[in-house]
Amino acid sequence: MAKLLKKRLKKAGLPPGTLVHIGERKLESVRITFIDYDEQSFQEKQLDNIEECFGFKVTPTVTWINIDGLHQTDIIEQVGKHFELHPLILEDILNTTQRPKAEDLEENIFIVLNMLSYNDRTQAVQSEQVSMVLGRNFVISFQENIGDVFEQIRDRLRNAKGRIRKMGPDYLVYSLIDAIVDSYFVILEKIGENIEQLEERLIHNPSDETLHQIHILKRELIGLRRSVWPLRELVGGIERSESVLIKESTEMYLRDVYDHTIQVIDTVESYRDMVSGMLDIYLSSISNRMNAVMKVLTIIATIFIPLTFIAGIYGMNFKYMPELEWRFGYGLVLIIMVIVTCIMLVYFRKKKWL
Amino acid sequence: MAKLLKKRLKKAGLPPGTLVHIGERKLESVRITFIDYDEQSFQEKQLDNIEECFGFKVTPTVTWINIDGLHQTDIIEQVGKHFELHPLILEDILNTTQRPKAEDLEENIFIVLNMLSYNDRTQAVQSEQVSMVLGRNFVISFQENIGDVFEQIRDRLRNAKGRIRKMGPDYLVYSLIDAIVDSYFVILEKIGENIEQLEERLIHNPSDETLHQIHILKRELIGLRRSVWPLRELVGGIERSESVLIKESTEMYLRDVYDHTIQVIDTVESYRDMVSGMLDIYLSSISNRMNAVMKVLTIIATIFIPLTFIAGIYGMNFKYMPELEWRFGYGLVLIIMVIVTCIMLVYFRKKKWL
Amino acid sequence: MAKLLKKRLKKAGLPPGTLVHIGERKLESVRITFIDYDEQSFQEKQLDNIEECFGFKVTPTVTWINIDGLHQTDIIEQVGKHFELHPLILEDILNTTQRPKAEDLEENIFIVLNMLSYNDRTQAVQSEQVSMVLGRNFVISFQENIGDVFEQIRDRLRNAKGRIRKMGPDYLVYSLIDAIVDSYFVILEKIGENIEQLEERLIHNPSDETLHQIHILKRELIGLRRSVWPLRELVGGIERSESVLIKESTEMYLRDVYDHTIQVIDTVESYRDMVSGMLDIYLSSISNRMNAVMKVLTIIATIFIPLTFIAGIYGMNFKYMPELEWRFGYGLVLIIMVIVTCIMLVYFRKKKWL
Amino acid sequence: MAKLLKKRLKKAGLPPGTLVHIGERKLESVRITFIDYDEQSFQEKQLDNIEECFGFKVTPTVTWINIDGLHQTDIIEQVGKHFELHPLILEDILNTTQRPKAEDLEENIFIVLNMLSYNDRTQAVQSEQVSMVLGRNFVISFQENIGDVFEQIRDRLRNAKGRIRKMGPDYLVYSLIDAIVDSYFVILEKIGENIEQLEERLIHNPSDETLHQIHILKRELIGLRRSVWPLRELVGGIERSESVLIKESTEMYLRDVYDHTIQVIDTVESYRDMVSGMLDIYLSSISNRMNAVMKVLTIIATIFIPLTFIAGIYGMNFKYMPELEWRFGYGLVLIIMVIVTCIMLVYFRKKKWL
Amino acid sequence: MAKLLKKRLKKAGLPPGTLVHIGERKLESVRITFIDYDEQSFQEKQLDNIEECFGFKVTPTVTWINIDGLHQTDIIEQVGKHFELHPLILEDILNTTQRPKAEDLEENIFIVLNMLSYNDRTQAVQSEQVSMVLGRNFVISFQENIGDVFEQIRDRLRNAKGRIRKMGPDYLVYSLIDAIVDSYFVILEKIGENIEQLEERLIHNPSDETLHQIHILKRELIGLRRSVWPLRELVGGIERSESVLIKESTEMYLRDVYDHTIQVIDTVESYRDMVSGMLDIYLSSISNRMNAVMKVLTIIATIFIPLTFIAGIYGMNFKYMPELEWRFGYGLVLIIMVIVTCIMLVYFRKKKWL
Repeated sequence: MAKLLKKRLKKAGLPPGTLVHIGERKLESVRITFIDYDEQSFQEKQLDNIEECFGFKVTPTVTWINIDGLHQTDIIEQVGKHFELHPLILEDILNTTQRPKAEDLEENIFIVLNMLSYNDRTQAVQSEQVSMVLGRNFVISFQENIGDVFEQIRDRLRNAKGRIRKMGPDYLVYSLIDAIVDSYFVILEKIGENIEQLEERLIHNPSDETLHQIHILKRELIGLRRSVWPLRELVGGIERSESVLIKESTEMYLRDVYDHTIQVIDTVESYRDMVSGMLDIYLSSISNRMNAVMKVLTIIATIFIPLTFIAGIYGMNFKYMPELEWRFGYGLVLIIMVIVTCIMLVYFRKKKWL
Repeated sequence: MAKLLKKRLKKAGLPPGTLVHIGERKLESVRITFIDYDEQSFQEKQLDNIEECFGFKVTPTVTWINIDGLHQTDIIEQVGKHFELHPLILEDILNTTQRPKAEDLEENIFIVLNMLSYNDRTQAVQSEQVSMVLGRNFVISFQENIGDVFEQIRDRLRNAKGRIRKMGPDYLVYSLIDAIVDSYFVILEKIGENIEQLEERLIHNPSDETLHQIHILKRELIGLRRSVWPLRELVGGIERSESVLIKESTEMYLRDVYDHTIQVIDTVESYRDMVSGMLDIYLSSISNRMNAVMKVLTIIATIFIPLTFIAGIYGMNFKYMPELEWRFGYGLVLIIMVIVTCIMLVYFRKKKWL
Repeated sequence: MAKLLKKRLKKAGLPPGTLVHIGERKLESVRITFIDYDEQSFQEKQLDNIEECFGFKVTPTVTWINIDGLHQTDIIEQVGKHFELHPLILEDILNTTQRPKAEDLEENIFIVLNMLSYNDRTQAVQSEQVSMVLGRNFVISFQENIGDVFEQIRDRLRNAKGRIRKMGPDYLVYSLIDAIVDSYFVILEKIGENIEQLEERLIHNPSDETLHQIHILKRELIGLRRSVWPLRELVGGIERSESVLIKESTEMYLRDVYDHTIQVIDTVESYRDMVSGMLDIYLSSISNRMNAVMKVLTIIATIFIPLTFIAGIYGMNFKYMPELEWRFGYGLVLIIMVIVTCIMLVYFRKKKWL
Repeated sequence: MAKLLKKRLKKAGLPPGTLVHIGERKLESVRITFIDYDEQSFQEKQLDNIEECFGFKVTPTVTWINIDGLHQTDIIEQVGKHFELHPLILEDILNTTQRPKAEDLEENIFIVLNMLSYNDRTQAVQSEQVSMVLGRNFVISFQENIGDVFEQIRDRLRNAKGRIRKMGPDYLVYSLIDAIVDSYFVILEKIGENIEQLEERLIHNPSDETLHQIHILKRELIGLRRSVWPLRELVGGIERSESVLIKESTEMYLRDVYDHTIQVIDTVESYRDMVSGMLDIYLSSISNRMNAVMKVLTIIATIFIPLTFIAGIYGMNFKYMPELEWRFGYGLVLIIMVIVTCIMLVYFRKKKWL
Repeated sequence: MAKLLKKRLKKAGLPPGTLVHIGERKLESVRITFIDYDEQSFQEKQLDNIEECFGFKVTPTVTWINIDGLHQTDIIEQVGKHFELHPLILEDILNTTQRPKAEDLEENIFIVLNMLSYNDRTQAVQSEQVSMVLGRNFVISFQENIGDVFEQIRDRLRNAKGRIRKMGPDYLVYSLIDAIVDSYFVILEKIGENIEQLEERLIHNPSDETLHQIHILKRELIGLRRSVWPLRELVGGIERSESVLIKESTEMYLRDVYDHTIQVIDTVESYRDMVSGMLDIYLSSISNRMNAVMKVLTIIATIFIPLTFIAGIYGMNFKYMPELEWRFGYGLVLIIMVIVTCIMLVYFRKKKWL
């Protein structure tokens, strides 16, 4: 997080609306994908030049322009100028430290959210910011990097599966959000598995490493929460908005996504509860182990210290120690030692230390 | 939970409204039960084919169709088509990871909730999703498995007990919800008993096992909370809804269920408080036991280490040690040792360690 | 609590409105007390038969019927029929596991709350459910057992003390609620005394017993909270209700009770804060005592182990150990031992262990 | 607190509006101070008899009657009768366990709050209840004891400093509230100093005493919270009230006091955070010290126990122990002992225990 | 904080509106900077006398008067008189212990907030209060000290960069707030770095020092919270206010700052979560180290105490101890000792202590 904040500082003090890309540059060159469709027709191509698609702004077909890579601010600026986006919106698109939000700007609706993916190698959750602008008959989406969770939506568009080709751009935006929220469940499942594994380990073999992993899990959930809570507000906001851009038929679908986000939040909160419970267990298991160590020490010491003392008595060099002369003095002392040991063992058994 | 999320993933990316059963298949074949009644007449049968009951959609009698088993999606689809249910509703019925909710869809009201049961063998709470659709004169309920808490409602219908036969389908839905909420009290009672047993054990014989059981209890309560909190919203929502499907005479009853759900929530929250209090007690009792162990060790060591030292002194082999030659040197040393021991014992008594 | 829940289960599945007494039967036979008054007249008698008082339903005087004992459901049913109470209300009266609440039913207002008393013998808070129905010119109250906190109200009625005889049934209901809320202060005072005693003990003589009592106190406060929080809602609800049954002149008095309930809640919450603070103190005092034990052990061991080692050296049987032959070898060793001890003592003093 | 509750019990069961003084009697005799002013005139005297000032109720000048001491209930009753105060208000004035609140009674506004002072001798916060009644052109204030924070207001009145003489009674009430809220900052400063001193001690010299003082601080903050939170509501309530008694010009001043109360609350909450942080530190520092003790013990024991064992070996009396006969056996054993000690020291250094 | 409160006390009891500077005097003499601009013209100068700029109050150009240093209350008073500011506003400007807030006073809007900076030398966050008054065509800002985060705004004004010269005084105020909020990100980044460093140290080398730094971090976050939470309210309040002073075109920009403040709050809250997680880790790592110490002690003691006992046995001086006479008695005993040691080591390995 500190890293992103540092990036953000680049901009501190610049006039608002200045277009500076805040975030890691994750891509060599910007890639522009263009899809145009209605119920009958479908057209998909990759553009070299953003201007190629400007003509489609006014056609009645739905146009979806997807831009991967944010470092070429001039492209973003061109898009902004052509589609009449407010400079602050462009700034938000470029600033990849945004909090998820939706803004209703009458002419269009602007949405920012985080697409999460789980990196199996580093076992960490990765976040990529996705911004969308919904217009009267176009959707423009901006991503930081190539690769997304929208492939199945493209398939449905290509093959006219489901109702997506019959619906407007608001339904497309819904589909994109839905795909992102669905991807959260993948993350949650991974985290759920991690929690289960950790619990297993916690009970059978707790170690410093376990503690460290609980800590990492906790931080990941803190991070996830930051993405997830605003999401609810976002989806709820779009659904309740009285924008003409959202048709009534789509509202039902948005309510469905809204339910999903609540489910995500519920799960994250339950996970947090579980993880903090795990810390308690870890701490008590440490105490328990310390207790076990102490008991061993105490048993050994409590048995042998008195015995050693008895041996010490008869190791003294006094001239007049009658017992030393006895025929069975040695045997007697050994018997006494056995008796003392037995008494101790009975005592420990009574105390349930054995 | 992780398991259910995994199932849910099957669907990620499919177009919304695609009917896929998410959840465990708990049943061999789907069972359809059909009940039709008004104040005078009553009819109950098991259907082989869902279409047999389609004619009853328009009759003025109340029709209750109960479907056990969700894996045959074509049956659900047929029902959906005939009773004009929105595809997203059908999707929700099939997805058994739903959060309890009620949706007012003008033509009908859709309700999802969890029916809980306590498995005495595994000592775990089991959850089964129940969905209901309330229409103008029909109720359709969907369950994952045969066996439910509605048997007494069926009895009342058969024998015209109470006012149920005189009331409409909204009262039937109320009765179903009421039966489910009542079943929560059974669960709460079981958990309450577990808490009491655990407390008993906690005071008289705490062990690692106790800690583990506190942890399990805690998780069960986390799970229960997830079912119970949305329930309140659900019932409150139906009660306050201005749907024509809910008659005024039924509202009073719904308010009654609402009170029950609040009571359930109250109890769950109190239990959570109690369980987290138990963890504190467990931790202090571990500390206390450690303290007791330490005291034994310290008493033994503190008494015998000085004695052993004295014995060690007179075990030295110096040529010129006058005491060794004394007639009563040995006796004197023994007396000194007794005195040292007494001083120690007095000290421990003063410290209240004995 | 588990016990009450168990009782509640008796009813699970019965049609709503079925009259079953849920709770302990605390009384041999039901006792019906009848009071009728206006500014001029006063009449009080004990009834054998509930029907004797039915005639007073329509008289302009205020009638107060108090029923002790809930197990004879037929009496409750008769009352319900005559005073036209909704079956669910009767059910709530009989179910003694109710959450405190007030319901405005146009024709009458129904109120349930808990009357608490402190049992000095068992040192536990005892709860008894009191239900009241406020009608146009009557009040019916239901209690589980003989004995209540209303005796002073009866006195005021008999002797026309205060304004109670001049006011209507709403003022009577206010007086009853006020008496119950006043009784909460008695409980709070007892708990406050317990807290003070426990704190005393905690500082001067903490033990396992103390921990156990903190735990009991905590549970009692959890229970108290469950009675007290809904009370606020209840009183606030009546005060704000626009029912014609509550005259404007009484509202001021209800606001007064409302303030009292908030004071009760405040006190309960402060007590909770204090009790959880006590647990922290208990835990630190355990740690402190462990620390003290450890220090004693360490001081003893650290002083004597090196001394014993020195003695051990000169207890070895090597043939050639020059020191053993020295004239003042023994004395020298003793002096060395004293010096070592002094060094240790200085070290401990520097560490502030002595 | 328990003490006050006990006092409160005196009243339980009496008819509402009965005037009983609840609280400690802090004063010999009641003192009545009378101030009457407008922009031109000013008059101040001490009254022997409350009736002397009754004539001023209708004069257009502002009359401020201050009554110190609440045990003579007849005076309060006379005031109540003359100024037409509701009996419940008189009851609230006499009951010194009130929660701060403001009540708008159309004819007048009734305000209760706590005036706090810090007793340097007992190092405790002391509370005194102040009630005020604001009428059309009079203010009556009631205090438990002589001595208050209003002296500067009297000075301003006498010397016509600031705008106070030009404004109405609402401004006077504002000034009184403002003086009380200002006095809270004195308390907060004292507590802030205590916190700083405690932190100093916590880091350099923690002891049981420190823990005890943290606990006292915590309780004082719990108590302070109870006075401070309702204050905000109180001031906010007066400011927003649409009473004709509050002129628009005074509202701005009330908003200012409101800001101050929020600042007080903020500070109290921050202090609570800090104090609970101190407890954590205390606990870790105890653990740390225990750790240090353990290390000393372990170092001493781990070095000397093996050495003593070696000495023990050569203290055995076997007939055939070749080493004992060696010429340099003794020297060799000493060298071995030094080597063992060195190894141990290196090990401890590696473990960072030295 | 205690220090500031102490300063505040200077004023307790003075009539409201009395101008007293509360806070540290940070500056030798007051510095007044004057900037006047519209789209075409720009004028900037430093004033010796505040009256020089009074003429600009009515000109249509935007006038920005910045005053560094608050100890010369007469200057503030003059400004107040000329620009018709309410005395309480002037009081708030001078009292540097204000909680951030915005007040809509019809004629102007008054804003107080804290400008934070990170002092690299003392590693502490420093706070300076900035007050602003927005009038119809002027902005007056008050700072405690020379040096601020507004330099880039002045640059933009001088060079007519961005739209700032084309917009009114509301946009200037927005720019000032934006610059201050941006400066918070600098602080957050520093704190984020500190957290990361501390975590590193916590895992690899925890010490008392680490605990102390966690504590300092925690307090800094408590302080930051106090500045940050009211900020949100402040910005939200200005945005939603219906004041004519805020033009519609500026509202979009204010919404942008609002988003930033929420991001700041989010980050602060996440940091708090992290820091409290660090304390848990610290405590467990102390426990872990104690555990390690205990294990070493136990292993050493458990191995050598029995061995020493065996040696003690054969150090006894009994006349008749057959083993002492044996030819290989010594060797046998040594072998027995080795065996005992091996058994112990195997036991420890099984317990996973080695």
